[in-house]
Amino acid sequence: MEVTPSHSVDQNPVDMPGSKGCHVRWLIGKSQEAPHFAMREFQVDPGGHTPRHHHPYEHEVYVLQGEGIIYEGDTPHPIQSGDVILVRPDEVHQFRNVSEKPLRFLCLVPNSAYELPVTMLPECGPR
Amino acid sequence: MEVTPSHSVDQNPVDMPGSKGCHVRWLIGKSQEAPHFAMREFQVDPGGHTPRHHHPYEHEVYVLQGEGIIYEGDTPHPIQSGDVILVRPDEVHQFRNVSEKPLRFLCLVPNSAYELPVTMLPECGPR
Repeated sequence: MEVTPSHSVDQNPVDMPGSKGCHVRWLIGKSQEAPHFAMREFQVDPGGHTPRHHHPYEHEVYVLQGEGIIYEGDTPHPIQSGDVILVRPDEVHQFRNVSEKPLRFLCLVPNSAYELPVTMLPECGPR
Repeated sequence: MEVTPSHSVDQNPVDMPGSKGCHVRWLIGKSQEAPHFAMREFQVDPGGHTPRHHHPYEHEVYVLQGEGIIYEGDTPHPIQSGDVILVRPDEVHQFRNVSEKPLRFLCLVPNSAYELPVTMLPECGPR
Protein backbone atom coordinates (compact mmCIF):
# COMPACT_ATOMS: atom_id res chain seq x y z
CA MET A 1 0.00 0.00 0.00
CA GLU A 2 1.13 3.54 -0.71
CA VAL A 3 -0.47 6.66 0.79
CA THR A 4 0.77 9.90 -0.78
CA PRO A 5 -0.38 13.52 -0.48
CA SER A 6 -1.05 14.53 -4.07
CA HIS A 7 0.61 17.93 -3.57
CA SER A 8 3.89 16.15 -2.74
CA VAL A 9 4.04 14.56 -6.20
CA ASP A 10 6.19 16.39 -8.75
CA GLN A 11 4.21 18.61 -11.09
CA ASN A 12 5.60 19.00 -14.60
CA PRO A 13 4.60 21.05 -17.62
CA VAL A 14 2.72 19.20 -20.35
CA ASP A 15 4.96 19.51 -23.39
CA MET A 16 2.64 18.01 -26.00
CA PRO A 17 2.20 20.17 -29.12
CA GLY A 18 -1.04 22.14 -28.85
CA SER A 19 -0.89 22.31 -25.07
CA LYS A 20 -0.88 25.68 -23.30
CA GLY A 21 -0.64 26.32 -19.56
CA CYS A 22 -1.05 22.65 -18.61
CA HIS A 23 0.72 20.79 -15.83
CA VAL A 24 0.57 17.15 -14.81
CA ARG A 25 1.26 15.03 -11.75
CA TRP A 26 1.51 11.27 -12.25
CA LEU A 27 -0.17 10.24 -8.98
CA ILE A 28 -0.19 6.51 -9.71
CA GLY A 29 1.69 5.23 -12.71
CA LYS A 30 4.60 3.26 -14.03
CA SER A 31 6.82 3.88 -11.01
CA GLN A 32 4.25 2.27 -8.70
CA GLU A 33 3.80 -0.64 -11.12
CA ALA A 34 0.04 -0.11 -11.04
CA PRO A 35 -1.36 -3.26 -12.63
CA HIS A 36 -4.02 -1.92 -15.00
CA PHE A 37 -4.38 1.87 -15.14
CA ALA A 38 -2.74 5.17 -14.24
CA MET A 39 -4.04 8.18 -12.29
CA ARG A 40 -2.83 11.61 -13.35
CA GLU A 41 -3.83 15.05 -12.03
CA PHE A 42 -3.90 17.89 -14.54
CA GLN A 43 -3.96 21.59 -13.88
CA VAL A 44 -4.93 23.96 -16.67
CA ASP A 45 -4.18 27.61 -16.00
CA PRO A 46 -6.70 30.34 -16.91
CA GLY A 47 -6.69 30.68 -20.71
CA GLY A 48 -4.89 27.35 -21.08
CA HIS A 49 -5.91 24.21 -22.90
CA THR A 50 -4.89 20.65 -23.63
CA PRO A 51 -4.20 19.64 -27.23
CA ARG A 52 -7.12 18.94 -29.53
CA HIS A 53 -6.46 15.25 -30.03
CA HIS A 54 -7.66 11.67 -30.05
CA HIS A 55 -6.29 8.25 -29.22
CA PRO A 56 -7.52 4.66 -29.21
CA TYR A 57 -8.01 4.49 -25.43
CA GLU A 58 -10.43 6.07 -22.99
CA HIS A 59 -10.15 8.78 -20.34
CA GLU A 60 -12.01 8.60 -17.03
CA VAL A 61 -12.06 12.11 -15.60
CA TYR A 62 -13.18 13.68 -12.32
CA VAL A 63 -13.12 17.48 -12.04
CA LEU A 64 -11.60 18.47 -8.69
CA GLN A 65 -11.67 22.25 -8.91
CA GLY A 66 -12.65 25.08 -11.20
CA GLU A 67 -14.67 25.47 -14.35
CA GLY A 68 -13.99 24.97 -18.01
CA ILE A 69 -15.09 23.39 -21.23
CA ILE A 70 -14.47 20.04 -22.78
CA TYR A 71 -14.85 19.90 -26.53
CA GLU A 72 -16.29 16.71 -28.00
CA GLY A 73 -15.15 17.25 -31.56
CA ASP A 74 -16.43 20.80 -32.19
CA THR A 75 -19.14 20.63 -29.52
CA PRO A 76 -18.43 22.35 -26.20
CA HIS A 77 -19.67 20.93 -22.90
CA PRO A 78 -19.31 23.09 -19.78
CA ILE A 79 -17.61 21.30 -16.87
CA GLN A 80 -17.15 22.14 -13.22
CA SER A 81 -16.00 20.70 -9.91
CA GLY A 82 -17.66 17.35 -9.21
CA ASP A 83 -18.34 16.47 -12.84
CA VAL A 84 -17.41 13.05 -14.19
CA ILE A 85 -16.41 12.59 -17.82
CA LEU A 86 -15.97 9.44 -19.86
CA VAL A 87 -14.06 10.14 -23.08
CA ARG A 88 -14.46 7.03 -25.20
CA PRO A 89 -11.66 5.64 -27.37
CA ASP A 90 -11.05 7.64 -30.58
CA GLU A 91 -13.21 10.60 -29.56
CA VAL A 92 -11.69 13.96 -30.48
CA HIS A 93 -11.46 16.04 -27.30
CA GLN A 94 -9.89 19.11 -25.77
CA PHE A 95 -10.06 20.69 -22.31
CA ARG A 96 -10.11 24.49 -22.07
CA ASN A 97 -10.05 26.70 -19.01
CA VAL A 98 -12.23 29.71 -19.79
CA SER A 99 -12.40 30.83 -16.16
CA GLU A 100 -10.09 32.99 -14.09
CA LYS A 101 -9.06 30.24 -11.68
CA PRO A 102 -7.09 27.02 -12.19
CA LEU A 103 -8.97 24.02 -13.54
CA ARG A 104 -7.86 20.78 -11.88
CA PHE A 105 -9.00 17.29 -12.77
CA LEU A 106 -8.03 13.67 -12.41
CA CYS A 107 -7.62 11.84 -15.73
CA LEU A 108 -7.13 8.08 -15.65
CA VAL A 109 -5.95 5.98 -18.56
CA PRO A 110 -5.40 2.25 -19.06
CA ASN A 111 -1.79 1.07 -19.12
CA SER A 112 -2.20 0.41 -22.85
CA ALA A 113 -1.95 4.21 -23.25
CA TYR A 114 1.81 3.89 -22.77
CA GLU A 115 2.06 2.04 -26.08
CA LEU A 116 -0.67 3.56 -28.25
CA PRO A 117 -0.44 6.55 -30.58
CA VAL A 118 -1.90 10.00 -29.90
CA THR A 119 -3.09 12.03 -32.90
CA MET A 120 -2.96 15.82 -32.66
CA LEU A 121 -5.44 17.91 -34.62
CA PRO A 122 -5.42 21.59 -35.54
CA GLU A 123 -7.59 24.01 -33.60
CA CYS A 124 -11.12 24.20 -34.94
CA GLY A 125 -11.52 27.98 -34.98
CA PRO A 126 -11.66 30.95 -32.66
CA ARG A 127 -13.32 30.45 -29.28
CA MET B 1 -18.48 11.24 -24.43
CA GLU B 2 -20.54 11.50 -21.28
CA VAL B 3 -20.43 14.45 -18.87
CA THR B 4 -22.29 13.82 -15.61
CA PRO B 5 -22.50 15.77 -12.35
CA SER B 6 -21.46 13.20 -9.74
CA HIS B 7 -24.22 14.30 -7.35
CA SER B 8 -26.82 13.31 -9.96
CA VAL B 9 -25.71 9.66 -9.88
CA ASP B 10 -27.74 7.36 -7.63
CA GLN B 11 -26.14 6.77 -4.25
CA ASN B 12 -26.80 3.38 -2.66
CA PRO B 13 -25.91 1.80 0.66
CA VAL B 14 -23.00 -0.62 0.63
CA ASP B 15 -24.50 -3.91 1.76
CA MET B 16 -21.31 -5.95 2.09
CA PRO B 17 -20.95 -7.76 5.42
CA GLY B 18 -18.69 -5.76 7.72
CA SER B 19 -19.70 -2.44 6.20
CA LYS B 20 -21.20 0.31 8.36
CA GLY B 21 -22.42 3.72 7.23
CA CYS B 22 -21.05 3.36 3.71
CA HIS B 23 -22.65 4.54 0.49
CA VAL B 24 -21.53 4.21 -3.12
CA ARG B 25 -22.10 5.89 -6.46
CA TRP B 26 -20.97 4.04 -9.58
CA LEU B 27 -19.80 7.09 -11.55
CA ILE B 28 -18.38 5.14 -14.49
CA GLY B 29 -19.04 1.43 -14.69
CA LYS B 30 -20.79 -1.39 -16.46
CA SER B 31 -23.68 0.73 -17.70
CA GLN B 32 -21.28 3.04 -19.57
CA GLU B 33 -19.38 0.03 -20.96
CA ALA B 34 -16.12 1.54 -19.74
CA PRO B 35 -13.45 -0.51 -21.49
CA HIS B 36 -10.95 -1.22 -18.71
CA PHE B 37 -11.83 0.11 -15.26
CA ALA B 38 -14.63 1.53 -13.13
CA MET B 39 -14.86 4.74 -11.06
CA ARG B 40 -16.87 4.64 -7.87
CA GLU B 41 -17.38 7.34 -5.23
CA PHE B 42 -17.72 6.19 -1.65
CA GLN B 43 -19.05 8.11 1.32
CA VAL B 44 -18.32 6.82 4.81
CA ASP B 45 -20.38 8.46 7.57
CA PRO B 46 -18.76 9.48 10.87
CA GLY B 47 -18.09 6.28 12.84
CA GLY B 48 -18.55 4.17 9.72
CA HIS B 49 -16.19 1.80 7.97
CA THR B 50 -15.78 -0.43 4.95
CA PRO B 51 -15.32 -4.18 5.51
CA ARG B 52 -11.89 -5.47 6.51
CA HIS B 53 -11.18 -7.44 3.37
CA HIS B 54 -8.89 -8.34 0.52
CA HIS B 55 -9.19 -9.28 -3.13
CA PRO B 56 -6.87 -10.14 -6.01
CA TYR B 57 -7.18 -6.73 -7.70
CA GLU B 58 -6.01 -3.22 -6.87
CA HIS B 59 -7.71 -0.04 -5.72
CA GLU B 60 -6.67 3.39 -6.92
CA VAL B 61 -8.09 5.91 -4.47
CA TYR B 62 -8.27 9.71 -4.30
CA VAL B 63 -9.64 11.28 -1.11
CA LEU B 64 -12.08 14.06 -2.04
CA GLN B 65 -13.24 15.23 1.38
CA GLY B 66 -12.79 14.57 5.06
CA GLU B 67 -10.38 12.62 7.22
CA GLY B 68 -10.06 9.02 8.24
CA ILE B 69 -7.84 6.01 8.48
CA ILE B 70 -6.95 3.26 6.09
CA TYR B 71 -5.76 0.05 7.69
CA GLU B 72 -3.07 -1.88 5.86
CA GLY B 73 -3.53 -5.18 7.65
CA ASP B 74 -3.39 -4.05 11.30
CA THR B 75 -1.42 -0.87 10.57
CA PRO B 76 -3.36 2.41 10.46
CA HIS B 77 -2.46 5.20 8.05
CA PRO B 78 -4.17 8.57 8.49
CA ILE B 79 -5.75 9.92 5.30
CA GLN B 80 -7.25 13.24 4.33
CA SER B 81 -8.52 15.24 1.38
CA GLY B 82 -6.03 15.22 -1.50
CA ASP B 83 -4.35 11.95 -0.52
CA VAL B 84 -3.77 9.26 -3.13
CA ILE B 85 -3.76 5.58 -2.16
CA LEU B 86 -2.68 2.55 -4.12
CA VAL B 87 -3.99 -0.65 -2.50
CA ARG B 88 -2.14 -3.47 -4.22
CA PRO B 89 -3.79 -6.81 -5.07
CA ASP B 90 -4.32 -9.11 -2.06
CA GLU B 91 -3.53 -6.44 0.55
CA VAL B 92 -5.86 -6.55 3.56
CA HIS B 93 -7.42 -3.12 3.94
CA GLN B 94 -10.21 -1.20 5.60
CA PHE B 95 -11.32 2.45 5.52
CA ARG B 96 -12.59 4.03 8.75
CA ASN B 97 -14.04 7.46 9.34
CA VAL B 98 -12.87 8.56 12.78
CA SER B 99 -13.85 12.19 12.21
CA GLU B 100 -17.14 14.00 12.69
CA LYS B 101 -17.69 14.79 9.02
CA PRO B 102 -18.33 12.56 6.00
CA LEU B 103 -15.31 10.93 4.36
CA ARG B 104 -15.61 10.85 0.57
CA PHE B 105 -13.22 9.20 -1.84
CA LEU B 106 -12.98 7.92 -5.38
CA CYS B 107 -12.05 4.25 -5.60
CA LEU B 108 -11.26 2.81 -9.02
CA VAL B 109 -11.03 -0.87 -9.86
CA PRO B 110 -10.19 -2.83 -13.00
CA ASN B 111 -13.10 -4.49 -14.79
CA SER B 112 -11.72 -7.86 -13.63
CA ALA B 113 -13.12 -6.94 -10.18
CA TYR B 114 -16.57 -7.88 -11.50
CA GLU B 115 -15.47 -11.51 -11.71
CA LEU B 116 -13.00 -11.96 -8.86
CA PRO B 117 -13.71 -13.01 -5.27
CA VAL B 118 -13.65 -10.70 -2.24
CA THR B 119 -12.59 -12.22 1.09
CA MET B 120 -14.01 -10.70 4.27
CA LEU B 121 -12.01 -10.84 7.50
CA PRO B 122 -13.05 -10.35 11.11
CA GLU B 123 -12.28 -7.07 12.83
CA CYS B 124 -8.81 -7.02 14.33
CA GLY B 125 -9.68 -5.58 17.75
CA PRO B 126 -11.07 -2.47 19.37
CA ARG B 127 -10.14 0.87 17.86
